[in-house]
Amino acid sequence: MKLLYPTSLRLNPALIAGFPTLTLHPYNPKAPTLPADLLDATILVTWANSAANLAFAAKNLPQLQWIQSLAAGPNDVLAAGFDTSRVKVCTGSGLHDHTVAEHALGLLLTAARRFHEMRDYQAQGKWPGHLGGVQPDREPGTFRTLRDARVLVWGFGNIAKCLTPLLVGLGATVRGVARTPGVRGGVEVFGEDRLPELLAETDALVMILPGDASTRHALNRERLAMLPKHAWLVNVGRGSSVDEDALFEALEKGEIGGAALDVFETEPLPEGDKLYKAKNLVLSPHAAGGRPQGAEELIVDNLRKFLAGQDLRNLISSKL
Amino acid sequence: MKLLYPTSLRLNPALIAGFPTLTLHPYNPKAPTLPADLLDATILVTWANSAANLAFAAKNLPQLQWIQSLAAGPNDVLAAGFDTSRVKVCTGSGLHDHTVAEHALGLLLTAARRFHEMRDYQAQGKWPGHLGGVQPDREPGTFRTLRDARVLVWGFGNIAKCLTPLLVGLGATVRGVARTPGVRGGVEVFGEDRLPELLAETDALVMILPGDASTRHALNRERLAMLPKHAWLVNVGRGSSVDEDALFEALEKGEIGGAALDVFETEPLPEGDKLYKAKNLVLSPHAAGGRPQGAEELIVDNLRKFLAGQDLRNLISSKL
Repeated sequence: MKLLYPTSLRLNPALIAGFPTLTLHPYNPKAPTLPADLLDATILVTWANSAANLAFAAKNLPQLQWIQSLAAGPNDVLAAGFDTSRVKVCTGSGLHDHTVAEHALGLLLTAARRFHEMRDYQAQGKWPGHLGGVQPDREPGTFRTLRDARVLVWGFGNIAKCLTPLLVGLGATVRGVARTPGVRGGVEVFGEDRLPELLAETDALVMILPGDASTRHALNRERLAMLPKHAWLVNVGRGSSVDEDALFEALEKGEIGGAALDVFETEPLPEGDKLYKAKNLVLSPHAAGGRPQGAEELIVDNLRKFLAGQDLRNLISSKL
Repeated sequence: MKLLYPTSLRLNPALIAGFPTLTLHPYNPKAPTLPADLLDATILVTWANSAANLAFAAKNLPQLQWIQSLAAGPNDVLAAGFDTSRVKVCTGSGLHDHTVAEHALGLLLTAARRFHEMRDYQAQGKWPGHLGGVQPDREPGTFRTLRDARVLVWGFGNIAKCLTPLLVGLGATVRGVARTPGVRGGVEVFGEDRLPELLAETDALVMILPGDASTRHALNRERLAMLPKHAWLVNVGRGSSVDEDALFEALEKGEIGGAALDVFETEPLPEGDKLYKAKNLVLSPHAAGGRPQGAEELIVDNLRKFLAGQDLRNLISSKL
């Protein structure tokens, strides 16, 4: 039984080896085809494959039974034409929690500590003295540190659970918003019906919503208006969850403190887009995740389940 | 007995009240004089005082017995001409640990996540695509995340102890360097004689050294050369501890990965200084601390000790 693993990341095959009937074969996921001697593969691991590569695999791997994507949302695999009545598809959900949480934390600290503004001064050869020396502290209506800051995390899955202890370690007060309320990882998570009061008590809003029809423009003009004037938005979920026109207006009018965005409605953000120059907007080019952590462990866990005929982890329903 | 507290920060006098013989009086530490009815004060709390204000206080408070500065290094008080044979001076050591640690973490994440480079692209209206999408991971000779990064903290006092759990929470491996080796806060701290091997195994060097003659140019040309080519320097201690000429050369020649500096040999960094445009240099204008945290608790603790005739916390020896 052949498992094909991509050379687009540094997987360590030694950490997957040990299943007696299984052989492991590297392949180039950017190539438009696969080598002839790999076409009898049973299992395909995907990461950063080209569309052509996936389209070729969908047509030319007759014995394929299972695709293990390492992406959190493997839209590329789902769009490639695999026969999902025969081929199981699993996501890489969980492999990006740590990296996205780290990036979100970095964007929050950039906002609080004004690193972007310091950079603008440096680029002009000027000392940003107004940002140094004696600092504002405990002033109502400011977001200048995570200590005692009220952080609201909207979309409370595994990334939020990874981010929360980091924020708490810095002294922030964390609350969550999700469709299903409850206490998760020690954080009180409220339903979306509570957004009006929650947004009004927020110094920094972190959005980690998936990109589907139900989340489109979740942060709209009305909800932006509920945020205090000093509040910052950090979005590491999907760009479609924020109404960018409404956000641009809120930024330009100073109705919110700023926004640090890793995701946009259109990526790359087109040259000339008004967001590049929007007031207090910090741009990051969808760089939060993009490097699966613990891929071998997921593959091994699912390999064992696959060989034992058990339900696979992160399985996408074949009805999709 | 009168205690004068400065209006340069939001101290809450209610958190200091309760000592029966003591009265609390706000004063403006920027004013060149003090009001006539406060000149019989026994205790003076200082923060961001003007030199004129301190000089006036040194001459016109005949009953003064104790100055509680909220600065980590109250050079301003020591230079003002107080009679230290009569007046005890205490520092605000410990009040800045959290804020400096937070800033250091922000600079480390800026370096790892390349936020400064993203900002440069944004300023030009360009999408920094090379920093987004699929990310480098586990590549030797890179510093792109704190996960599994080898962080060396040079100068291992309370700020380092505050920073370490944040770094460990992000998955970094932390080691320390200090004059006195040992295990502190769960971190192995080595003597400076071990720097050659430690620097060679460092992805990010965080310097938190005080600024005195013994630390001048502690990071010199020779020691910079011991760092791997990808290693970043973060300095939140004192500018004098880094040889800036040697650092500039190392940056320009690509001998180290970059440097994020909150402190400089001369502050403000003079306009036209070569460091503004140095390759991979991130400038922060001495903004790490500058806002004492927990000042009331320190004042109360020392008030109780003072009234009980006990040794004061953070007392500077009168021999200084």
